[in-house]
Amino acid sequence: MPDLSFGQYELAYNMFSFTVATMFASFVFFILARQQVAPKYRPALVVSALVVGIAGYHYWRILGSWTAAYEFLGVEEGFKATGVPFNEAYRYVDWLLTVPLLLVELVAVLSLPKDKGNGMLTRLIIAAAAMIALGYPGETSDNQSTQMIFFVLSCIPFAYILWVLVGELSKAVEGMNGEVQNLLSKTRTIILITWMFYPIAYLFNVFELSGAMGEVGVQVGYTIADVTAKAFYGVFIYFIAKAKSDAEGWAPAEAGKAAHA
Amino acid sequence: MPDLSFGQYELAYNMFSFTVATMFASFVFFILARQQVAPKYRPALVVSALVVGIAGYHYWRILGSWTAAYEFLGVEEGFKATGVPFNEAYRYVDWLLTVPLLLVELVAVLSLPKDKGNGMLTRLIIAAAAMIALGYPGETSDNQSTQMIFFVLSCIPFAYILWVLVGELSKAVEGMNGEVQNLLSKTRTIILITWMFYPIAYLFNVFELSGAMGEVGVQVGYTIADVTAKAFYGVFIYFIAKAKSDAEGWAPAEAGKAAHA
Repeated sequence: MPDLSFGQYELAYNMFSFTVATMFASFVFFILARQQVAPKYRPALVVSALVVGIAGYHYWRILGSWTAAYEFLGVEEGFKATGVPFNEAYRYVDWLLTVPLLLVELVAVLSLPKDKGNGMLTRLIIAAAAMIALGYPGETSDNQSTQMIFFVLSCIPFAYILWVLVGELSKAVEGMNGEVQNLLSKTRTIILITWMFYPIAYLFNVFELSGAMGEVGVQVGYTIADVTAKAFYGVFIYFIAKAKSDAEGWAPAEAGKAAHA
Repeated sequence: MPDLSFGQYELAYNMFSFTVATMFASFVFFILARQQVAPKYRPALVVSALVVGIAGYHYWRILGSWTAAYEFLGVEEGFKATGVPFNEAYRYVDWLLTVPLLLVELVAVLSLPKDKGNGMLTRLIIAAAAMIALGYPGETSDNQSTQMIFFVLSCIPFAYILWVLVGELSKAVEGMNGEVQNLLSKTRTIILITWMFYPIAYLFNVFELSGAMGEVGVQVGYTIADVTAKAFYGVFIYFIAKAKSDAEGWAPAEAGKAAHA
């Protein structure tokens, strides 16, 4: 790990802490927001809650690993690497759990016919596992050609997933009402933009940008990507579920009124 | 960080601990109190819970950072700065998440027409982000003119937000029944008074009041402001939701009575 200035260390630290707060707050939100959507869309919100809950746990650990990797020298002198390596594996373990769940979330809210949804989901989950497993050897290697080979290999399932998702979302848009259509196109854009952060942050590592700025850039890049691809995306899944519930004429039960009648 | 007397250190420490307790207790209250209001007002209480939950997390961290920034010498000698800076960024990260949510909370309880509410909310959230982003460079600068410039810049979106909120609340009061009207005026007063604490605490920093008393004054000022603007304000949002539910003839289902019948 490279030595860091005070500002560089603090930037990554505060981004991690921000993400812990965001993930756990989103967890509470997705659990409570289930009551606002029709029962058939609630599984999508449950899965959203699992994703951000798992991510919140990992960012808590990442914050601890970051603190252990550095020793404070002074505001002017900055932070010196302690020699304890920052545990990159937390991210990969997190993705191994959360990326398949993010895919489940989307398929659940689209409410595709069961046979079609399950087949697509199986293929997507296999591709996600391959993408993450192929990324890890490159992330932890010091050899640039090894890093590059695994980057390219990992990009094949990555491109496949995006191709399927974007295709599915474009098909799903047809025949939906105006607001749902609008939200689905936005979700497609969010997926395309946020998922691009991952290969970019990865390439920071590959191209010798691995000094202090490179290290901080990778951490901040992955963090922004995780907040957007998990919490922000989950809020969109909620909006889609809400808009579909409204379009289907569903409303939260007015239990109180019934008691008066 | 300036050295502190025993009493000065303890005052800030105990205020932080008080706030952790208040925020987490409010979190539980807002979650449970949802059952007491009509379903349409429950999202406002969910958002109240998120705000105080996020703030509770940050005050927990603030308490830790305060402890790390000082070393205990003795009851007479007081506390000496360790050189590890107190992390002011926790407050700014907190506000970045909670101020937009406080605005969502208010718009949700007013139950404005959807298109009007969304447009207003977008403008308010952009102003809130600008206010916080413009405040931070001044808070962390050592230069008095830099501090003053960012104070003034940050006050522009601050004034805009207050002007919109107070205007909206004055309009909302019209045509409401007596109790709701009364609560809305009180909420307007709470917003006006509590939000004023923030620029005042900020100015403590600017005007060389940054000795021991200045530092403690800033911390105590921000803490009182956060407790009032988040927990106390949230309780008023609950009272408004309850009064509106009552006015609309809604009452919690009397499941127990039904079971007896």
